[in-house]
Amino acid sequence: MRHPGCWKMLTVAMCVALLGCLQAQELRGHVSVILLGATGDLARKYLWRGLFQLYLDEAGKDYSFSFHGAALTSTKQGQAFIAKVLESLSCPEDVAPDRCSELKGQFQRLSAYRHLATREDYMALSKDIEAQVQRGGLREAGRIFYFSVPPFAYADIARNINSSCRPGPGAWLRVVLEKPFGHDHLSAQQLATELGGFFREEEMYRVDHYLGKQAVAQILPFRDQNRKALDGLWSRHHVERVEIIMKETVDAEGRTSFYEEYGVIRDVLQNHLTEVLTLVAMELPHNISSSESVLQHKLRAFRALRGLQKGSAVLGQYQAYSEQVRREQQKPDSFHSLTPTFAGVLVHMDNLRWEGVPFILMSGKALDERVGYARILFRNQAYCVQNDEHWVADQSRCLPRQIVFYIGHGELGSPAVLVSRNLFRPSLPPESWKELGARPGLRLFGRPLSDFYAYSPVREQDAYSVLISHIFHGRKDSFVTTENLLASWGFWTPLLDGLAHEVPRLYPGGAENGHLLDFEFGGARLCFSQQQPEQLVPGPGPAPMPSGFQVLKARYRESPLISAWPEELIAKLADDIEATAVRAVRRFGAFHLALSGGSSPVPLFQQLATRHYGFPWAHTHLWLVDERCVPLWDPESNFQHLQTHLLQHIRVPYYNIHPMPVHLRQRLCAEEDQGAQTYASEISALVANSSFDLVLLGMGADGHTASLFPQSPSGLDGEQLVVLTESPSRPFQRMSLSLPLINRARKVAVLVMGRVKREITVLVSRVGHEPKKWPISGVLPTSGQLVWYMDYEAFLG
Amino acid sequence: MRHPGCWKMLTVAMCVALLGCLQAQELRGHVSVILLGATGDLARKYLWRGLFQLYLDEAGKDYSFSFHGAALTSTKQGQAFIAKVLESLSCPEDVAPDRCSELKGQFQRLSAYRHLATREDYMALSKDIEAQVQRGGLREAGRIFYFSVPPFAYADIARNINSSCRPGPGAWLRVVLEKPFGHDHLSAQQLATELGGFFREEEMYRVDHYLGKQAVAQILPFRDQNRKALDGLWSRHHVERVEIIMKETVDAEGRTSFYEEYGVIRDVLQNHLTEVLTLVAMELPHNISSSESVLQHKLRAFRALRGLQKGSAVLGQYQAYSEQVRREQQKPDSFHSLTPTFAGVLVHMDNLRWEGVPFILMSGKALDERVGYARILFRNQAYCVQNDEHWVADQSRCLPRQIVFYIGHGELGSPAVLVSRNLFRPSLPPESWKELGARPGLRLFGRPLSDFYAYSPVREQDAYSVLISHIFHGRKDSFVTTENLLASWGFWTPLLDGLAHEVPRLYPGGAENGHLLDFEFGGARLCFSQQQPEQLVPGPGPAPMPSGFQVLKARYRESPLISAWPEELIAKLADDIEATAVRAVRRFGAFHLALSGGSSPVPLFQQLATRHYGFPWAHTHLWLVDERCVPLWDPESNFQHLQTHLLQHIRVPYYNIHPMPVHLRQRLCAEEDQGAQTYASEISALVANSSFDLVLLGMGADGHTASLFPQSPSGLDGEQLVVLTESPSRPFQRMSLSLPLINRARKVAVLVMGRVKREITVLVSRVGHEPKKWPISGVLPTSGQLVWYMDYEAFLG
Repeated sequence: MRHPGCWKMLTVAMCVALLGCLQAQELRGHVSVILLGATGDLARKYLWRGLFQLYLDEAGKDYSFSFHGAALTSTKQGQAFIAKVLESLSCPEDVAPDRCSELKGQFQRLSAYRHLATREDYMALSKDIEAQVQRGGLREAGRIFYFSVPPFAYADIARNINSSCRPGPGAWLRVVLEKPFGHDHLSAQQLATELGGFFREEEMYRVDHYLGKQAVAQILPFRDQNRKALDGLWSRHHVERVEIIMKETVDAEGRTSFYEEYGVIRDVLQNHLTEVLTLVAMELPHNISSSESVLQHKLRAFRALRGLQKGSAVLGQYQAYSEQVRREQQKPDSFHSLTPTFAGVLVHMDNLRWEGVPFILMSGKALDERVGYARILFRNQAYCVQNDEHWVADQSRCLPRQIVFYIGHGELGSPAVLVSRNLFRPSLPPESWKELGARPGLRLFGRPLSDFYAYSPVREQDAYSVLISHIFHGRKDSFVTTENLLASWGFWTPLLDGLAHEVPRLYPGGAENGHLLDFEFGGARLCFSQQQPEQLVPGPGPAPMPSGFQVLKARYRESPLISAWPEELIAKLADDIEATAVRAVRRFGAFHLALSGGSSPVPLFQQLATRHYGFPWAHTHLWLVDERCVPLWDPESNFQHLQTHLLQHIRVPYYNIHPMPVHLRQRLCAEEDQGAQTYASEISALVANSSFDLVLLGMGADGHTASLFPQSPSGLDGEQLVVLTESPSRPFQRMSLSLPLINRARKVAVLVMGRVKREITVLVSRVGHEPKKWPISGVLPTSGQLVWYMDYEAFLG
Repeated sequence: MRHPGCWKMLTVAMCVALLGCLQAQELRGHVSVILLGATGDLARKYLWRGLFQLYLDEAGKDYSFSFHGAALTSTKQGQAFIAKVLESLSCPEDVAPDRCSELKGQFQRLSAYRHLATREDYMALSKDIEAQVQRGGLREAGRIFYFSVPPFAYADIARNINSSCRPGPGAWLRVVLEKPFGHDHLSAQQLATELGGFFREEEMYRVDHYLGKQAVAQILPFRDQNRKALDGLWSRHHVERVEIIMKETVDAEGRTSFYEEYGVIRDVLQNHLTEVLTLVAMELPHNISSSESVLQHKLRAFRALRGLQKGSAVLGQYQAYSEQVRREQQKPDSFHSLTPTFAGVLVHMDNLRWEGVPFILMSGKALDERVGYARILFRNQAYCVQNDEHWVADQSRCLPRQIVFYIGHGELGSPAVLVSRNLFRPSLPPESWKELGARPGLRLFGRPLSDFYAYSPVREQDAYSVLISHIFHGRKDSFVTTENLLASWGFWTPLLDGLAHEVPRLYPGGAENGHLLDFEFGGARLCFSQQQPEQLVPGPGPAPMPSGFQVLKARYRESPLISAWPEELIAKLADDIEATAVRAVRRFGAFHLALSGGSSPVPLFQQLATRHYGFPWAHTHLWLVDERCVPLWDPESNFQHLQTHLLQHIRVPYYNIHPMPVHLRQRLCAEEDQGAQTYASEISALVANSSFDLVLLGMGADGHTASLFPQSPSGLDGEQLVVLTESPSRPFQRMSLSLPLINRARKVAVLVMGRVKREITVLVSRVGHEPKKWPISGVLPTSGQLVWYMDYEAFLG
């Protein structure tokens, strides 16, 4: 931070520099609000009300206002519409009726419709504002443009504002944008770049109206005001799970043309639920009133999100949906939509605070109830000695312990913050949150309401009112910055891509869904708890994959071949490796496993890390088949893959891990450092007869294996166990086990996956022993066994 | 396994070798049961009934029997006693009354009292048995001696049996022993050694009557018969916790002379609950009918138990206990017992199956109910979409999922096996277990009985009847072998020693205990959930330690000194290290920490591993201050300590771990391998200015620090950063950072703990800078900070 005195001087200097600034300080500020799309649905339902609320809150304080309802409608129609909307505004309970009707009259007088289409219209608007300011003897404080228009209109409007309707120096511009902010990472980026050509980052306020929901807006203040109590609780050591849920009873009828393009993940999870997730998960800044600090911490939370895979989600679609789409969009009878109307997603965070804690995000239409909440359920780490009949809510540590930010609706019917009595008595700001009265018979999350300290807002406010106030006060942390938006799309896009052709499970809708949509997780994978019943068979979308549980056994190059769909293949290979390991440890006391680099083994590592707890890791030695000449910590390093996907999750003793010494004396693969020889002696010393128990290889599209490339001058024959080689692609320098060493192994497994391997697979099936041309053809264990593991795409194309 | 044909030949060969064997095969076998202590309580209550049941089960099969009730009572009294006991035996329901009363008559005729005191008595008994066998034209099959006598009588009886009452060749001897089997590991070992002088291991049957409880005896068969369903469930990935519980309502009144010597841990946890624990936790043998295999797997489970510490247990004592002891044992009014009548213990297993799963063992007297069970609670890994009102017991995966081996009593009133309906339908042997009928209104473990598949035994049997049958059939896996016994005492003794002076929490008894005894865990530590209320202040046993939450700040050798009780000291040091780490990472992007070996840092490692999840491990480099010249995997290696107590539990990237290169080219600390120089260049390359962010040192009783010993020719001054040194104790060769390098650190912390350090602490406080005599006095960072961390015992003596 700069020295405060210095700041003062700077402010003065800026004021002097900005002509009229010193003078303007004495004038009353004026704020113009331009509501674009003033005659639309959102404006009618929420925005005019929000603006009226803003006026109620701020009238008589530091600023004067004018409200411009703009649209493309003709002036006459627009005026009539607005007059009607304004007339219908009701007064909130906490303002005296007389005072309110006086203010309402003022608000109506300050509000006017204007047709706003061309650049000239915008210039005229700007002139009118300037004139009004001057007439009133005011100083222009700022202009708010609220974009309540479809995204395709954004660019034109933005261009016009930027070129012709910016306020003069000393006054701010705030443009408020409504979702959708793109459809995936690329489109969001394009949109952001386009808008970035017209507005500075600090001028843009992207609305996620969930951030204006009172219970959501209370998450950070709650964490801040209860810092001490939460300090020991808010982590993987105490939290069992976090549920972030938005359930709807309505379906998409009447909106299918929009919905068909988006689906539930884009509509709810990518934005609303993700925003709530980051508020729950982020590290708490020291000063939560600093927008900048909050936004930075939020961004860090995004960075800690573990990437989603296809298996991270389950999808559903209410049964009537396709029919609704057909009807509303005149589709043929044969049309079946794949758009999900229900999704459950399992999110994990890779940081020390949350590692291993499941964050469950779920939303759906046509469910049994309308409700939204973020629920933090704490682990039971107590044993209660008395029979459970005698447990007392605020004393028993064995009753469920939870904190719920109840967003609204549901059985409670209002926003609330709930804290189990056996946790702690929370502190909430008494001017805005009050304790809920008793509601006998009401149960929430399996417990009577009386089990909770329960608070609801003193004054219930809709999200848009809250947000409009935040826009006016410049509280940027209630909005989605470009960085956060792109981080969120960066997180969701791979999943959306992966699921693009997934057939959602059909569900009947409402309470009839029963347990059909319940889902569960093991590791990072999610699946429905129940089998799909037969009467709900999905329509003929893209054909579902054949069940891959059969593993094809055949021969390839005169050795056993195991072929299956990728997941089953990896599962089979992992099982085989474990069986080999168990046998080796039983016979020899140790298992020497040499692993290849590249991307193919990564799913194998993950499989071994998360499903094979019987693996004798404590007695396993891990060797590298090959390595790139980069430091071990380089993201390109094969060892780094191993570290990230396997070593971090298991317990191999440090001294059983044998990275290749490619980095000695601060240099890479220097001949004179004799790294290859060192590795060879380490192998000779530790591995009986230099015969690995298992060597895992891959096969390149050029027929290379390990880092032995076609025409390699070394490693294909001869005495050397470990060699330095050259790759045709970067990084060029490599270290590799030699073919003769590989062929001493008791068992060699070659893993080949993906359609890109199809050609070489066919080719290699036909060639003889020609290691100079196709190094893989030289793999033939002297006395050990060779097994090929190929997925169907590599094998059958 | 040997070839079956070979076994057959061997059996034949043995039969030929044992004279009369072939002939004996044709004769009916005879078994003599000698019940020692036949007039005692246990015999009267259970053992005669068990023998009668044995006779009911076996009469008319392959063997004939005789039952000898032996004691030291006069023959007349003994005869009368036995006649009365036998007369009182009732017939079980499942035997027809006529048949039973006939068998009862036979049993009475076959049973006789005999006075058995001297060696001659035993010789006479042996002769009588032989005569009886011969008379009946029988072959002697074996003799069972059931020791229902106090332990002090064991040795004499054992000697007499061994010398004078062994059966002849071809017949077996089985001696049945009742607990207590010692008081701690040493006494158990002595007793075992003594008995081992008289009997072979396979002749001894140590009774833990819990192993005869029907629900306990069903644990392994249940696991075996439901192998497929349990395979995916029986591990840390699915089990949330295991509770092994025995609650009593009675207190120790009338038995305090025994109880005062033992307490609840020795009385219940060390034996009964531990046996149940191993049955639940052990790996399941392929063939559970092989006693040998079961016993071996059980022993392995013992080996996986993580050592208990003082903090692993909470202790209680019902309020009236001390008064009962005073009354029954004529103690003065000032006497207050420290014997616990309640204990909760948290057990962890260090294997891949159970790592991290809490096993909660609890037993107590004067509690609210009498009940015993082993309960396996599974994690909820599902999300149920519908409101919980609609959940259905056998479909919802969100309702509690549990398997309970209900040992008896409690609200159910009988042994049972319970499996939640949302888990799977279990398979139990229909001839011995039947489904329980509906019991509306009955709730168990928070759920209605109807939520469970519930089974109870077709015929309820008491534990002794079951065990006597197992003795007769030689099923050794239902008994405690010497190895298992010693493993169990080896596990419990350190805790018992640690708790010897612990003041138990007083509790009123019965339902009034409320939540007073509830306890909870964080990491490996257990504590009561509630504060001790004031009206229940413990009596004046050994003075409780002063509350150690004050940390004394002072100066020592002109540097800051922090002093506290050990646990607080370690906590403070760990906090300080974390704060230093966070600062270093923030400023420099990395934290370079050099750690000492020896035992003092172990609790620090544990603290860091389990309590500091905010520690920036991913950016921390770990260096060694010193190392013994042994391979890294040697238990003596400092690195190995680090590995076991810290590295296994955290995530430091592999390449940030820097063990000292004491083991190069398969030899240890050879000058020519230049290990010290290699380590020095690694430090120079990675640590800016070779200045560690923090060096943790200890201080030896001789004033040494790191591995720099008094009069060391190297390392105390000069240019070398890393040196080879000689220790006065084994292993002699060491590698160590030099004083000049240590003194370049930004911060040096010296940790000194324990009374043994008192003298050197006083001495070093007085000496000047004399590193040759006291190397520790040479620690004085050039521009960094030195802080001393001493516990009160080291500092105040």
